Amino acid sequence: MKNTIGNSVAVTLFGESHGEAIGAVIDGLAPGLDINREYIAHMLTLRRPDGRISTPRKEKDEFRIVSGVVNDKTTGTPITILIPNENVQSGDYSQMKTVARPSHADYTAECKYHGFQDSRGGGHFSGRITAALVAAGAICKYALEQKDILIGTHVKRCGGVSDRDFDNLSEDVKDLNEKVFAVLDEEKGEAMREAILQAASEGDSVGGVLETVILGMPEGVGEPWFDSVESMLSHMMFSIPAVKGIEFGAGFDIVDMRGSMANDPMRLEENKVVTTTNNNGGINGGITNGMPIVFRTAIKPTPTIFKPQDTIDFRAMEEAVLSPKGRHDPAIVHRARIVQDAAAAIVMCDALAMRFGTDWLG
Amino acid sequence: MKNTIGNSVAVTLFGESHGEAIGAVIDGLAPGLDINREYIAHMLTLRRPDGRISTPRKEKDEFRIVSGVVNDKTTGTPITILIPNENVQSGDYSQMKTVARPSHADYTAECKYHGFQDSRGGGHFSGRITAALVAAGAICKYALEQKDILIGTHVKRCGGVSDRDFDNLSEDVKDLNEKVFAVLDEEKGEAMREAILQAASEGDSVGGVLETVILGMPEGVGEPWFDSVESMLSHMMFSIPAVKGIEFGAGFDIVDMRGSMANDPMRLEENKVVTTTNNNGGINGGITNGMPIVFRTAIKPTPTIFKPQDTIDFRAMEEAVLSPKGRHDPAIVHRARIVQDAAAAIVMCDALAMRFGTDWLG
Amino acid sequence: MKNTIGNSVAVTLFGESHGEAIGAVIDGLAPGLDINREYIAHMLTLRRPDGRISTPRKEKDEFRIVSGVVNDKTTGTPITILIPNENVQSGDYSQMKTVARPSHADYTAECKYHGFQDSRGGGHFSGRITAALVAAGAICKYALEQKDILIGTHVKRCGGVSDRDFDNLSEDVKDLNEKVFAVLDEEKGEAMREAILQAASEGDSVGGVLETVILGMPEGVGEPWFDSVESMLSHMMFSIPAVKGIEFGAGFDIVDMRGSMANDPMRLEENKVVTTTNNNGGINGGITNGMPIVFRTAIKPTPTIFKPQDTIDFRAMEEAVLSPKGRHDPAIVHRARIVQDAAAAIVMCDALAMRFGTDWLG
Amino acid sequence: MKNTIGNSVAVTLFGESHGEAIGAVIDGLAPGLDINREYIAHMLTLRRPDGRISTPRKEKDEFRIVSGVVNDKTTGTPITILIPNENVQSGDYSQMKTVARPSHADYTAECKYHGFQDSRGGGHFSGRITAALVAAGAICKYALEQKDILIGTHVKRCGGVSDRDFDNLSEDVKDLNEKVFAVLDEEKGEAMREAILQAASEGDSVGGVLETVILGMPEGVGEPWFDSVESMLSHMMFSIPAVKGIEFGAGFDIVDMRGSMANDPMRLEENKVVTTTNNNGGINGGITNGMPIVFRTAIKPTPTIFKPQDTIDFRAMEEAVLSPKGRHDPAIVHRARIVQDAAAAIVMCDALAMRFGTDWLG
Repeated sequence: MKNTIGNSVAVTLFGESHGEAIGAVIDGLAPGLDINREYIAHMLTLRRPDGRISTPRKEKDEFRIVSGVVNDKTTGTPITILIPNENVQSGDYSQMKTVARPSHADYTAECKYHGFQDSRGGGHFSGRITAALVAAGAICKYALEQKDILIGTHVKRCGGVSDRDFDNLSEDVKDLNEKVFAVLDEEKGEAMREAILQAASEGDSVGGVLETVILGMPEGVGEPWFDSVESMLSHMMFSIPAVKGIEFGAGFDIVDMRGSMANDPMRLEENKVVTTTNNNGGINGGITNGMPIVFRTAIKPTPTIFKPQDTIDFRAMEEAVLSPKGRHDPAIVHRARIVQDAAAAIVMCDALAMRFGTDWLG
Repeated sequence: MKNTIGNSVAVTLFGESHGEAIGAVIDGLAPGLDINREYIAHMLTLRRPDGRISTPRKEKDEFRIVSGVVNDKTTGTPITILIPNENVQSGDYSQMKTVARPSHADYTAECKYHGFQDSRGGGHFSGRITAALVAAGAICKYALEQKDILIGTHVKRCGGVSDRDFDNLSEDVKDLNEKVFAVLDEEKGEAMREAILQAASEGDSVGGVLETVILGMPEGVGEPWFDSVESMLSHMMFSIPAVKGIEFGAGFDIVDMRGSMANDPMRLEENKVVTTTNNNGGINGGITNGMPIVFRTAIKPTPTIFKPQDTIDFRAMEEAVLSPKGRHDPAIVHRARIVQDAAAAIVMCDALAMRFGTDWLG
Repeated sequence: MKNTIGNSVAVTLFGESHGEAIGAVIDGLAPGLDINREYIAHMLTLRRPDGRISTPRKEKDEFRIVSGVVNDKTTGTPITILIPNENVQSGDYSQMKTVARPSHADYTAECKYHGFQDSRGGGHFSGRITAALVAAGAICKYALEQKDILIGTHVKRCGGVSDRDFDNLSEDVKDLNEKVFAVLDEEKGEAMREAILQAASEGDSVGGVLETVILGMPEGVGEPWFDSVESMLSHMMFSIPAVKGIEFGAGFDIVDMRGSMANDPMRLEENKVVTTTNNNGGINGGITNGMPIVFRTAIKPTPTIFKPQDTIDFRAMEEAVLSPKGRHDPAIVHRARIVQDAAAAIVMCDALAMRFGTDWLG
Repeated sequence: MKNTIGNSVAVTLFGESHGEAIGAVIDGLAPGLDINREYIAHMLTLRRPDGRISTPRKEKDEFRIVSGVVNDKTTGTPITILIPNENVQSGDYSQMKTVARPSHADYTAECKYHGFQDSRGGGHFSGRITAALVAAGAICKYALEQKDILIGTHVKRCGGVSDRDFDNLSEDVKDLNEKVFAVLDEEKGEAMREAILQAASEGDSVGGVLETVILGMPEGVGEPWFDSVESMLSHMMFSIPAVKGIEFGAGFDIVDMRGSMANDPMRLEENKVVTTTNNNGGINGGITNGMPIVFRTAIKPTPTIFKPQDTIDFRAMEEAVLSPKGRHDPAIVHRARIVQDAAAAIVMCDALAMRFGTDWLG
């Protein structure tokens, strides 16, 4: 449904990069959930550019909850979060109004909105909007944690450097949630940051892979045929700008396995059904099996670079060369990571409410 | 919405592998579309197991259209397609009723449906149900072709063998639509089939990669934030059993590119905007840009193999060893290919109707 | 969503009056619900024309459940009910193909479907399709009864005659469910039937009012702002052909009351909150309050009459006079009553599943 | 979907009477529509209490559009309207927190939200929220007017006084849109106001009937079975607090007509199909027929009165007597009228976009 996602728990996103405010409405969350403003602020901080390897644009991301919360408890009615835009320098983007930035939405927005789209800073397509998604997801993620459902994401790969695999899942996840640059191996993280800075120094950008785990989801959540947990998660993740792929469990590596290798043997552990491998990423037939849900997304390099690029002016309909100015990230993968956490939390809340009713989280 | 997908064009799937019939209801298609029964039958044939490398289960897949069509034209009201189940040997599956087949939905179905699920042959989770999806998608695919929107899928990789890349897209797509085992390079196809038979001879199975292209989609189709074309397609594709990953354009390979490499330069060709590369797979900001839409899916090896596997009996809650009997495919990737075509066609019809209204296809 | 209604429990309707079959798909019902085929058959019988005051078209309404049910228990996956069409005499309707029957959907269907609609016997707009709605609702109604949620409808008014008001609700409701012509006062019922036959003898038709009560619904069901129980019920009821109005509780009579008269005083009865009047029909702010849900619908007289009527030929675009032949009911209010029961049952199942989760009914 | 309504054009409502702000998000409107702020302000003024017969609570209803609009044109992305709450005197409502106001949502909200609902001034259930619906609807209504689709509502009945019937529809509608107390016959309006003041002087309240006409809707809009125009409009109207009934065309009066009286004869007028009566209110088979859409709603008397009423304290679970204080309307029917206009406009925009695509209004 366009800018609304979810069945039992639905999130509606609105706003433009250089408009008055961005925000989200969350509908369907159980009444009585704790709103932890520090937790929300912390997640917004993790999404925000840090001075060193990201754009200097400094947003305080002061959020305001204007509905659905009384005395820091959810009322059960729609929660509206507003994040005013500050520090806006529209001037920087003047050239971009008609000259398409390659691999951005400038041209497709023109095709769809016939020139009425807000083109300042990417408008409604700006990664900036993910701040509202993070704030909404933070409420969901905190609520899930109260039910011992934990979500964590690390930068699995960036600038040609790979992070180590998960080892002790619950400890690793808790560590990740405290980190600004979320990697399991700090040395790899440092190497990634150097690769990002190297690209930046060349006016270029890099991409990466984000890996998310969700721990503690009960069995039996998800719906055939069309609301499989994989379908719901992928639908959401492809809404995050720059995501070009998603895979669950062994993902694309599974294609070269034999069935005898790929199948996850099952056994009992303290009378709980577990699998000895998790090539299916915690999901069979679209339904959770009680194992950790594991997925990875492919994040493309930031499209805005400081090298001249061939493009077109879609008003004049003539070819052009673009030489961007302004503020841009040489990488967003390390920032997208918290967006992925938040987005996954929203989907889990929806899937749980579909299955167990509105009050289950309460 | 569980077993219904789509906004303006919606498909509802029903049925079980060993029930009386499977089928689909397609709602929202324009009135006056031609129903080409040979075309539908042809696509059903392509999904069907061939004697050589697939299960000998022979379904004639006689379909009946019981509503929504008069004189082989769509009426504009719901089209219901029924495919009776034949040649059912429930006996083969007796053991599986309580002993979970690893990496199948047996255990998760038990968690969700508390033992009331139809466990015969996978019941509602059976790949058999995709026959109904293919029939529904065949109507959509044929309608799209009348508008010069072409869809084709090839087995990009199987059993460790890779097919060649697309060369002349429209010719390649037309060729693929005639092939039983859809590859661009027949020698590679033969090698794949040998790999499948080799695995089969060892009681094992293989997976693969399917690559789909969609040609001729107009620009400006798709919706931020949550109904991006990528979101809609991935939501649908993860409903197909065995799909564990999806990637668009350069997909996961984009993560190691620099922005200057990954960005698709734009230029004018006969006053039409084109890009000189297509790393974004025809989609920017979730909206079509007029270039071919390209995506690949990861298909896991058929989980049913003829080797003993550790598993559990979920009624007795005790560990067990499974030694399957019955009829099974050593690979389904070559059959899933036509399912992917059909599924993509349904999503394109929906996206077009959302954008241009119900009658656009008519 | 066009021919699908419901959030957590969704029903999709398909078929045409003179097509091969009509039917419904019910998705989202809990697994393990009993399917009582006699109960379904009984409700279908109550919808069927009786020889005396209704069209002689005799449908056996043999229904087949082709998916979602094993051993007469719901599996939790989509339930598909098929009702083959029999005794079809398309010839009777030949004239109607281009000459619009006043107050029927002939002309509006032409506007929407551009001549591709199935015009035989009203096609997809035929009251015949309600048989599928009744079969689907019968499953829901039976499931609700197992939870002591009872639904009953009587002909409150027909042919200028009014039935008595409800007295002992639960007894009255049980009685109604056994009756072919559902009135609380048999003498009034006889007078209504005479009025119908009188109209019939003059080639004319009559309408009426249907009053439905729903007993035993728990408090706190329904959603502000847009999924109020009144919104959900009215959305459904206006899908029933011939319904032109709906009112809850005191309905339109409330407009001449003072607030002091209209308000329902509250008190405690065995520590349960009750109201001493029920002018709000069991719903406040769109949410159930535990009192009986009461609503009435206005059913227009059957539009097909045997008097010449001014109309138009929408193909020739010229004025015409229509003199119908064939089989028609002088009234459908007494048959619509069971459709209203069934439709209400579907909405209640959906509202309960939205609130308490998929398994609540199980 | 709870607090979101609409398919192609969707509106999400949020906020509480005494919270920081109320508002609405409108998604799916075509790009390039004019935003007429005076028009929006005018409609908000018409909803606002006037000093004489309504609560003295004075809201300036200063609205802010924080997204989706640039240079007073819609961008095509979500439009968010915020209306800050002012002049809030929560103290007035202290007693109401646990003592249910009869015929209000206090008790049902407690049942659903377990005490976490915002009970100040009715919270999310307050008629106050309709200001946001009016602002959203004003944008839709203005857009429809640019397409010569006009909507008007008058107080058909109030305090036992009935307004005259529509005479010259388009002139009457234009007049109504200028009036604070919308009646066609000013003398009847004066009599209604006197009846309201009389009730007020007795600490009581009155209800009424609102009649809406929609002119200029094209034929062929609306969907069988479940998105009939009647279903969509009634779903919306029952979301408006105090609405207890809705009827289309002749409505409940049709039940005592014979078919020969009730049917609308058809003829040609300047080669356009018209009906000589409009007992079906412009809708056949759920689809518009090109005649004016006519419907009436039953508005119950304001539940808050200044007489002692028997009720319960739902926390203490004991009986109580309520003697309200504070600010209340002796009638809201004259204010609800503009809400009904706005709500109808939203539904028409949605129905048109479903039928003709997103850009049709643009």
